[in-house]
Amino acid sequence: MSSVPTRFTLIGAGNVATQLGLALQAAGMQAVEVMSRTIQSAGKLADRLQCACTDDIRTLRSDSEVYIYCVSDSALESLAQQVHAPHALHLHTAGSMPMSLLDVNGNRHYGVFYPLQTFSKDRPADFRHIPLLIEGNTAETTRQIHALARLLSDTVVEAASEQRCLLHLAAVFACNFVNHQYVLANELIQQSGLPFELLLPLIDETAAKVHDMSPQTAQTGPAIRMDTNVTDRHLDMLDDPKMRQLYQLLTESIHRHSAG
Amino acid sequence: MSSVPTRFTLIGAGNVATQLGLALQAAGMQAVEVMSRTIQSAGKLADRLQCACTDDIRTLRSDSEVYIYCVSDSALESLAQQVHAPHALHLHTAGSMPMSLLDVNGNRHYGVFYPLQTFSKDRPADFRHIPLLIEGNTAETTRQIHALARLLSDTVVEAASEQRCLLHLAAVFACNFVNHQYVLANELIQQSGLPFELLLPLIDETAAKVHDMSPQTAQTGPAIRMDTNVTDRHLDMLDDPKMRQLYQLLTESIHRHSAG
Repeated sequence: MSSVPTRFTLIGAGNVATQLGLALQAAGMQAVEVMSRTIQSAGKLADRLQCACTDDIRTLRSDSEVYIYCVSDSALESLAQQVHAPHALHLHTAGSMPMSLLDVNGNRHYGVFYPLQTFSKDRPADFRHIPLLIEGNTAETTRQIHALARLLSDTVVEAASEQRCLLHLAAVFACNFVNHQYVLANELIQQSGLPFELLLPLIDETAAKVHDMSPQTAQTGPAIRMDTNVTDRHLDMLDDPKMRQLYQLLTESIHRHSAG
Repeated sequence: MSSVPTRFTLIGAGNVATQLGLALQAAGMQAVEVMSRTIQSAGKLADRLQCACTDDIRTLRSDSEVYIYCVSDSALESLAQQVHAPHALHLHTAGSMPMSLLDVNGNRHYGVFYPLQTFSKDRPADFRHIPLLIEGNTAETTRQIHALARLLSDTVVEAASEQRCLLHLAAVFACNFVNHQYVLANELIQQSGLPFELLLPLIDETAAKVHDMSPQTAQTGPAIRMDTNVTDRHLDMLDDPKMRQLYQLLTESIHRHSAG
């Protein structure tokens, strides 16, 4: 294995595989093959990367230098067990899965390459500004993963599996749960007949504020002001009992965290 | 009353009063007086606006053209009842309070001037990009409020009280509840020993995505993938029962809204 491997195989063809593959290619690396459950999705990404494709993990070419698993957590273990390339570097991109899942089939070099970002297939990702959380099974492997990660990003952080799991959990709050608040806000604003776009300056400023102050300091609104006039009226306006429960729980949580 | 009034009085000296006062001044209007519960906070904003100040609503100067109430919802009604300037324009900036609270003391012109944004005292607000939701008690008053609002913002929307209440409720989700997710994410990342700043590219991208696609389309993460492998592990990692309850409720809510 050379000091920075250049030929890579992607197992998976979803959002992460797509954006990571394009970024590796843009950094001068060469795609060997894309494997996906369907030949259609494998072929679509392989076309963009100009490489081979397959839907059968058992026929995967074994002459690649890096195998990158960008698959759902539930599929990762079984797929890794079917790849036989003990001298290559094996990396998974999952936030919450242990590195040790790749300790199979005599693999000598393996680790984690977790990009802390939300990806969409058709939305270009700027990897230079995406933190890459890495981990390797040996000091030498970690150095190689680090070199590879630095090709893409200015922010490369070594993190043990436990740290990475906490970070992934934090990311679920900061991204997935945040986006779900947008979903709920969108439902409410649609009831008013006004467009969702009216909320965009507020959404942008809410994100921008925490660049300059802690989220605790940035908290505004009726919950933090303990303005039960407003929060009671809001609860009355919510017809959906589940949404009411969520409003109540979040309002209480804001109270508790302001007292702390 | 001239067609666009120019002399304004602020009742309140908090985040909204501060940023709105500065924006009105920058647009060429003239501050007459600032009233606040404490003479210190009134004086601080009056210094920035170069105008008079008071902490006694009963001594408020009555020669202003616009009285703008930027106070907590619970204080609004009682303060409005103590202002005697029946020929001036009276405006409140509250998202969830009815316009009719200002129908007191023979006021002939009154309405609502609700900026859909989160404000901090020391963070400049760019009013040109802040939607202003307005409402007036007569067509003429509405026209005047519209003209005033256009001095500050490119996005002026007439909205009845009921629409505005829904919008305010949507804003609580899109801003206050979103920021609270940042607070919780910050707590979790601190447990890992890694800095909050690592989450900023993710936070920015999450906000940026909903400029280009609906929040429903933008949803990612283990909850929408129904990846119970991960969500169960996350629940195990949360020691705080309240935070666990919140995680569970948000995960269920993401499920329900994906099926819809």
